[in-house]
Amino acid sequence: MTPPRFLIVADGDFSPMTSKTANSVIRFLPDRTVGVLDRAQAGETVQDVLGFGGALPIVGSMREGLALGPTAVLIGIAPQGGRMPQEWRAWLAEALDHGCDLWSGLHTFLGDDPLLAEKARANGRKIFDLRRPPADLPIASGLAKTVDPLVVLTVGTDCNVGKMTAQLQLTRKLNERGVRTRFVATGQTGIMIEGWGIAVDAVVADFIAGAAERLVLEGAKDADVVLVEGQGSINHPGYSGVTLGLLHGSCPDALILCHQATREYIGDYRQAAWLRIPPLAEYIRLYEMIGSAVHPTKVIGISLNTYDMGDAEARRACEAAGRETGLPATDPVRFDPAPLVDAIASERTRHQGRRSA
Amino acid sequence: MTPPRFLIVADGDFSPMTSKTANSVIRFLPDRTVGVLDRAQAGETVQDVLGFGGALPIVGSMREGLALGPTAVLIGIAPQGGRMPQEWRAWLAEALDHGCDLWSGLHTFLGDDPLLAEKARANGRKIFDLRRPPADLPIASGLAKTVDPLVVLTVGTDCNVGKMTAQLQLTRKLNERGVRTRFVATGQTGIMIEGWGIAVDAVVADFIAGAAERLVLEGAKDADVVLVEGQGSINHPGYSGVTLGLLHGSCPDALILCHQATREYIGDYRQAAWLRIPPLAEYIRLYEMIGSAVHPTKVIGISLNTYDMGDAEARRACEAAGRETGLPATDPVRFDPAPLVDAIASERTRHQGRRSA
Repeated sequence: MTPPRFLIVADGDFSPMTSKTANSVIRFLPDRTVGVLDRAQAGETVQDVLGFGGALPIVGSMREGLALGPTAVLIGIAPQGGRMPQEWRAWLAEALDHGCDLWSGLHTFLGDDPLLAEKARANGRKIFDLRRPPADLPIASGLAKTVDPLVVLTVGTDCNVGKMTAQLQLTRKLNERGVRTRFVATGQTGIMIEGWGIAVDAVVADFIAGAAERLVLEGAKDADVVLVEGQGSINHPGYSGVTLGLLHGSCPDALILCHQATREYIGDYRQAAWLRIPPLAEYIRLYEMIGSAVHPTKVIGISLNTYDMGDAEARRACEAAGRETGLPATDPVRFDPAPLVDAIASERTRHQGRRSA
Repeated sequence: MTPPRFLIVADGDFSPMTSKTANSVIRFLPDRTVGVLDRAQAGETVQDVLGFGGALPIVGSMREGLALGPTAVLIGIAPQGGRMPQEWRAWLAEALDHGCDLWSGLHTFLGDDPLLAEKARANGRKIFDLRRPPADLPIASGLAKTVDPLVVLTVGTDCNVGKMTAQLQLTRKLNERGVRTRFVATGQTGIMIEGWGIAVDAVVADFIAGAAERLVLEGAKDADVVLVEGQGSINHPGYSGVTLGLLHGSCPDALILCHQATREYIGDYRQAAWLRIPPLAEYIRLYEMIGSAVHPTKVIGISLNTYDMGDAEARRACEAAGRETGLPATDPVRFDPAPLVDAIASERTRHQGRRSA
């Protein structure tokens, strides 16, 4: 099929840290994006708001957005709990009437909305609910530990610290080096970018690890390295179950720990100042101990997100993380990702040695 | 409503360790059970098979079962993945035509089966799908740590080691001592016995902890102690995500570690001899470390399941577990549960002291 051209809806929540899906689609699929709908910042460019994205326009109505010539409208923000604001329904119906498909990663499936389903049918358009899980997921049984490629999972100190972005950058760089590397998407945004995957946070709880297992088995075909997109954090009060199911189901041989350098508290709990993010060494201990309870694994690098720091400060943060942990540390989006690419490539060589021994 | 009288379907899988739901309903609701349907052991008594349950009959057909006068047919086995064998459909349709309700904790909802739904409607009967989650669950936000009662969660070395049974026994004993104690059901069987709860393994993955949080807030009303039914195990390759979401969402002040004394390997992975169950001390370290990452908690006792041991051997196993961990240890079903009841009562006193300090 012809690749879609997206108008991204990020109304009321378009910013460098909140509109994760919108931002990632713009970063990784810039040629497939025609604009962003956000009434609050209409008239500005995406570059003005995000610091990247160039002259892509921000519009204030669906009518203006449709004038940009999209073939699909993509929901670009993920409200807590994943439910769609009711006021967007009319916009989406308008888009369907105008001949656009809909792409959504919300927990509430657009295809289950009678109005939107009928509009899609009447107009011959498609609704892609990327969080809708497959019907036949297995209970994980450890099959992921048997695959030949090196499996690397990103783990984090919190949600939304760059676990997917790091893997996408590293996938690109490893392939440029001739290491056949596949990215495995485990969340809505990764699925939008990669074109396949399962949103592991949307499956029935018993099947989290089973979904991860299936993804690794699929990703392992014709690959030397499989880079699995991580989710949540092992100490996140709301999402840790997804994190652990993914860790145990994917049986990673190595982990890359992701952290936003300026963040002090676990995301959604900031106001209560309840959960201060402990030192990176504490996360390394937790992830290695709990991960290795099922399949031996270790942290081999630190991926920092420094988007809100100056250049010098960001470099110092990477150096500090490296000193603190004794591991390669960089911001793979902002700086040269080579330290992490090297770490994975070396680990892959050791892994091949173990496999053939 | 009049309490139901159950005919329990456990066809092909009725035994002391496999038919967990059937066995627990028989143990805790003996006066509401009329018999068990299992073609392989028809003609024997429940006592013959389980070692408890007395003269309750095992029958070989739905017709014989309905002749025992049930008002409801209860699905008593939980096949891996929770899906119903197709051959049972005709039996359940027959039961509905005979005027029975259906109770099920399977992942596949009986009420979504067109034949059964239509039979239920036509006969004015009800289908209770106990694993169907509420529609409006929250993302957990740590509210469970704010409740006044002492919250105690059972955690395990594997699935099906007695986490629910221990809590039901301890709830009974604590209430007999005048400590107002509420049992919080987190699985299908607990819900059947207690009459309310949420099957946390059946909710969408993002909401595991949110379901646990809601249950603890409800259970905390008019209680001094809340005993939460645990699920799975922190190192179970298939179900650990559910275990951790429940641990972080319920914010327990104390944990009771449950173990089947003779078990050497994590349940479903026995054939591969992949995951040997590590020493109890290792579980204590894992659960305390990962639990306390969100809310301070500690293991205060060991609950052993010794159903398959002789009396002397069982007593030695309890003593050994106590020596190994330095904690009160007993089989609360087989022996006097006082060591664990005392441990909870003492912890509650300390907890009250901390709350009023």
